[in-house]
Amino acid sequence: MLGSTHGTLTTDSRRARVIACGEQPGPAVHGRPAEVDDLDVSGRALYSDVPDLDRLFRPESVAVIGASDAEGRPNTGVTRQLIAWSERVGARLHPVHPSRTSVFGIPCSPSVADLPEQVDLAVLLVADPLPVIEELAETKVKFAVVFASGFAETGEEGAAAQDRLTAAVERSGMRLLGPNTNLNAFEHFRDDLDGPAIALITQSGHQGRPVFALQELGIRLSHWAPTGNEADLETADFISYFAERPEVGAIACYVEGLKDGRAFLLAADRAARRGVPVVAVKVGRTETGARTAASHTGKLTGADAVVDAAMRQYGVIRVDGLDELQDTAALLARARPPRADGVVVYSISGGTGAHFADLATEAGLRLPALSEARQAELHQWIPEYLSVANPVDNGGHPVGDWRGRKIIDAILDDPEVGVLICPITGPFPPLSDRLVQDLVDAAERTDKLVCVVWGSPVGTEPAYREVLLGSSRVATFRTVANCITAVRAYLDHHRFVAGYRSPFDEAPRTPSPSYRKAQALMRPGQQLSEHAAKQLLRAYGIRVPREQLVTSAAAAVRAAGLVGYPVVMKASGARIAHKTELGLVKIGLTSASQVRDAYRGLTDIARYEDVSLDGVLVCQMVERGVEMVVGTAHDELFGPTVTVGLGGVLVEVLNDTAVRVPPFGEEQARDMCAELRGRALFDGVRGRPPADLDALVEVVLRVQRMVLELGGELAELDINPLMVLPRGQGAVALDALAVCR
Amino acid sequence: MLGSTHGTLTTDSRRARVIACGEQPGPAVHGRPAEVDDLDVSGRALYSDVPDLDRLFRPESVAVIGASDAEGRPNTGVTRQLIAWSERVGARLHPVHPSRTSVFGIPCSPSVADLPEQVDLAVLLVADPLPVIEELAETKVKFAVVFASGFAETGEEGAAAQDRLTAAVERSGMRLLGPNTNLNAFEHFRDDLDGPAIALITQSGHQGRPVFALQELGIRLSHWAPTGNEADLETADFISYFAERPEVGAIACYVEGLKDGRAFLLAADRAARRGVPVVAVKVGRTETGARTAASHTGKLTGADAVVDAAMRQYGVIRVDGLDELQDTAALLARARPPRADGVVVYSISGGTGAHFADLATEAGLRLPALSEARQAELHQWIPEYLSVANPVDNGGHPVGDWRGRKIIDAILDDPEVGVLICPITGPFPPLSDRLVQDLVDAAERTDKLVCVVWGSPVGTEPAYREVLLGSSRVATFRTVANCITAVRAYLDHHRFVAGYRSPFDEAPRTPSPSYRKAQALMRPGQQLSEHAAKQLLRAYGIRVPREQLVTSAAAAVRAAGLVGYPVVMKASGARIAHKTELGLVKIGLTSASQVRDAYRGLTDIARYEDVSLDGVLVCQMVERGVEMVVGTAHDELFGPTVTVGLGGVLVEVLNDTAVRVPPFGEEQARDMCAELRGRALFDGVRGRPPADLDALVEVVLRVQRMVLELGGELAELDINPLMVLPRGQGAVALDALAVCR
Repeated sequence: MLGSTHGTLTTDSRRARVIACGEQPGPAVHGRPAEVDDLDVSGRALYSDVPDLDRLFRPESVAVIGASDAEGRPNTGVTRQLIAWSERVGARLHPVHPSRTSVFGIPCSPSVADLPEQVDLAVLLVADPLPVIEELAETKVKFAVVFASGFAETGEEGAAAQDRLTAAVERSGMRLLGPNTNLNAFEHFRDDLDGPAIALITQSGHQGRPVFALQELGIRLSHWAPTGNEADLETADFISYFAERPEVGAIACYVEGLKDGRAFLLAADRAARRGVPVVAVKVGRTETGARTAASHTGKLTGADAVVDAAMRQYGVIRVDGLDELQDTAALLARARPPRADGVVVYSISGGTGAHFADLATEAGLRLPALSEARQAELHQWIPEYLSVANPVDNGGHPVGDWRGRKIIDAILDDPEVGVLICPITGPFPPLSDRLVQDLVDAAERTDKLVCVVWGSPVGTEPAYREVLLGSSRVATFRTVANCITAVRAYLDHHRFVAGYRSPFDEAPRTPSPSYRKAQALMRPGQQLSEHAAKQLLRAYGIRVPREQLVTSAAAAVRAAGLVGYPVVMKASGARIAHKTELGLVKIGLTSASQVRDAYRGLTDIARYEDVSLDGVLVCQMVERGVEMVVGTAHDELFGPTVTVGLGGVLVEVLNDTAVRVPPFGEEQARDMCAELRGRALFDGVRGRPPADLDALVEVVLRVQRMVLELGGELAELDINPLMVLPRGQGAVALDALAVCR
Repeated sequence: MLGSTHGTLTTDSRRARVIACGEQPGPAVHGRPAEVDDLDVSGRALYSDVPDLDRLFRPESVAVIGASDAEGRPNTGVTRQLIAWSERVGARLHPVHPSRTSVFGIPCSPSVADLPEQVDLAVLLVADPLPVIEELAETKVKFAVVFASGFAETGEEGAAAQDRLTAAVERSGMRLLGPNTNLNAFEHFRDDLDGPAIALITQSGHQGRPVFALQELGIRLSHWAPTGNEADLETADFISYFAERPEVGAIACYVEGLKDGRAFLLAADRAARRGVPVVAVKVGRTETGARTAASHTGKLTGADAVVDAAMRQYGVIRVDGLDELQDTAALLARARPPRADGVVVYSISGGTGAHFADLATEAGLRLPALSEARQAELHQWIPEYLSVANPVDNGGHPVGDWRGRKIIDAILDDPEVGVLICPITGPFPPLSDRLVQDLVDAAERTDKLVCVVWGSPVGTEPAYREVLLGSSRVATFRTVANCITAVRAYLDHHRFVAGYRSPFDEAPRTPSPSYRKAQALMRPGQQLSEHAAKQLLRAYGIRVPREQLVTSAAAAVRAAGLVGYPVVMKASGARIAHKTELGLVKIGLTSASQVRDAYRGLTDIARYEDVSLDGVLVCQMVERGVEMVVGTAHDELFGPTVTVGLGGVLVEVLNDTAVRVPPFGEEQARDMCAELRGRALFDGVRGRPPADLDALVEVVLRVQRMVLELGGELAELDINPLMVLPRGQGAVALDALAVCR
């Protein structure tokens, strides 16, 4: 069962069951039997249950296999920490060791079979966990944690050992954390901190340290899941589980690779539905990083652009540094939803305000000018010559007395303002001590977000350590960049959640009428001819030029008459690439004689170039529009993807494309077009009319539908170019490449 | 004199003197009379002296005008701080106040005229400094510092007052810091810190606080110049001065606007020649930022892309945040030049290494794989299954004993390695304490750069505060991003300096023979016809198609015969834009009859469109190549600029261009082409041959020459398109727009 819903069966074999054989799919979704409705038309899961991990994090009884209290043994320190943790969470701890009668005074069982009760959680400190897992299966233990390393992270042999471990766990019905994990789940979490907490998931223990350390700055952490090699429980399971926990305000992840892309998306979807922000570092921006991470974890890293898109589709906030992970997760966990998206920058220096406004605006924050009335109000306390439009520059002096608080309250009172940010470049106690206290006090009385950037590199100042870090209502940052990143993520997250509609709810579950037509065109293992590929497009309602495939000059002339002059003629065959470069395309033919000449010319060239033809296409000339490329690709992590890009040689060079992982809705298709660097082309340039963007979006969605329905049978599809005509006139696929699996 | 070399006279009037009148230019470069050789062919300075500011920062005697010791007066605190500072620097301090006999026990003079000695420095705490400046002029004071605000930063009236102040200072021969400056220059600098120092220049006092605070982390600061409104002394003066000071290792600047772009470049050139790194925050990434900064300082901000390019031309390292300014300046000030550009990442966790390597590689750092031999050496101490190629993952345990130091030394011993970076995500004392000590010890014995990223957000740990900050040899960062930014800047800076040739040394000083030919074509205030614009290009040796301007169909046919078929025909006139859109271009004409028809067609359309023609151009058809745009523009800060970009409608949309500020050499012209996003087009795509990049570079340099020589007379020049032919075949300007001033 474990992990198999998304991982073990390939898309193709699942598809075969559902569509071709009409059989009920076998494997169960975690915790309940799968139904046909839980699968989309490609046979992939539309739903995953939340694993019940309560007894992993809060067991009533714990066995420690390999416990030790012998001086100098590594397991001794671990055992000591597990005993302390069990006491904190109120669990009964049972050491297990074949030759000890007690460990740290606690009676020790010689083997798992001799345990005095059925335990919720077994922590395995032994070098070879496999036999113990098999023993534990007998005792119906719920969870096992395996510290041993030497599995998939070490190479092929280790991967085989890990597969055996996974198989044993699957048979047992227990859930496993690890192998190659550590004590992080059993750390000492501070229980004196209030408010929504961060839940942390890491694939490398050390990478979680900075987020864990946030507790020392007063930020609550509720869980830490060090997932290690993810032989069973994976990042996605913990995201799902944490998203349902009431105490969790945000989920912070450090991800090197994913076990199963679909499972990750389903978990992210759950978090998005619940409005719980997921902030993630995902290694793999570069080849070097991806390679290093893959060798470290033995997981798939996926193409980075696809990872990036997939995360954005589900509102996962991707950051680069662990410091950004800390700061962004902490803000998102604790801040209430924004009342407005306007950001006001308030400072005691015009320079500081100008600098912050510059960087904030560049990052896409909206700094609305305050109303004349509001500015007049502020000028009661701030000299006239200072600008208070936004940024608000108070010149310094007003923060030293009663005016300081008035100014802050007046800004927070503005309905346009959702966030007040006060950058403070360093301590200047006569001003900054009072300013900081006023901000902390004001934050207690508002539900708007108050942020402070404490720019001093020293960080031992009382205003920072005591006053700012002592407040759970002010979000304090150490750098302008991290403040901007976090505030941007905060506003984006709430905007995203407010408009979120799960694409899984709307994903097609049964094949469309197009599917049967398309199936008839498929030629397993072959590349289709241009003509056949276009028929495939037509089957899915994508417009292609009027065209006829002919095999004689006379037929060509007849076809041209039917298609209508002027015509284009192209050599057609199963494996012709670079038609234009080879001279196998003739355009602008306006007469029967030109058509006859062209037919002869094309067949001559084909003979010389040793190209095998199935005929010559006589096609309608389509008027000029914006040339686009729409296609599909296959990602090792997420499966089929849909890509849209600007066409033409230059854009090939510039690689101006956008990608999405199905399923996605119309809005995402629109976003794809909007994120192209050359999007201004759609508006019409140099006097051209605006392009039919709706038609382009429709083609993207139809290609998605094709890839979902034909995913198992279609290896590759590329429409290049898709000519997007002026608004209201549609889009026409002028050429297409389709390769069957 | 002050500031006038670069600022007061316009380029045009200077040009007129040097070129047209042959007169010696009047104004002196600071400190010595200007010579003709100090000016380039456009009449702009090629040299600026270093102002002698020794007695500003280290005066022997100081007058404090408006000194006070009365309880509760703002000037009292300032006076106290100036007294303390004078004692520290060994200066005699003389208070000046009309009604006091002593201030803090020091005898007080009633007026400047009554001062007991000629002073080096007068600090003016009075609200209206103008009359005092005039009195000071009599006493031959060297430097005045004016704290008063209410000048250019407040609007027009203030700007006029500032102009009067500037004029008074110019007449006096003294140099002025301010107005609207503050005590920053007179802060208490720690004198117990060793090694090269940071010198700091800020246009807003608060923005310098974080760099100043670095002293608390053990990093030496030698000077702080708070330039305020820069009525006289400006950022450039301080860069020049600091670049010559032996104790200065790096110059850190916070810049909102510049008084004079040329002066800034000359100062940056001086720093580049001396190998002194300049690290700068420059506000103005966005319109909002630029507007806010301009209103804050009353200075010019310039187009951001031009600022960016100008800084890169002179190796100025631009950063965004004050934290980056701190970290980058500190590293560059203190680190010795690199022995190699290879970076090795070393950590106790494979995850940490993978993550760092990912971000470092993305930022352009080179992480070479260590040799097999070196890896074998490392595997003496590190388990075989861990990767030590780079990143080096030691798995943790080896750092706990003697092996830790061996590993570090072996890495530093590698000739490929210039930088060792050890990211530590947080304290784990059994490992991290020893690791940190080993790194500090190893750094003492190597001249290679050792960096540590201390990722804990807490920052109070002894390993960080005491051991790392206690070392002047280890560069310690708090975030991965800042470490990468600083190391990148460090390697880039030394590479830049090693290859630096000052463009001012090679800038043309006298007009080329082309200039006289070009002058004959200029039509003041008018846009030239295409034909005339192309003749201008020809005058500067830029190739244009063979073409003739004709005014009859018969002449057109004769011209076509001379030019050679096929030909292009275009309407020609002084103010025709969008020729193609209007149908005023006919291409591919292959016969006399087609030429005759085209002539009639063009003149007909011109009549209908009410376009005034000076004739019709009959031009040689040029074969296809890479379409480029080369042009000029005028920046408010830096004057004329040269731009190169990819041509065609799509690139117009994508705005793929690069810009440089003259003077620049061939290498910069090559860099311009190399930084275009679509540069792969030059290599030839879809089977096209590689483009003649040398010819493109040559055109860029010739356009620069034009703009330098004709700068005063030429308002605008655009070659669009410039057809860059296959390698060895040159580049041809197919169309050009030129507007005379």
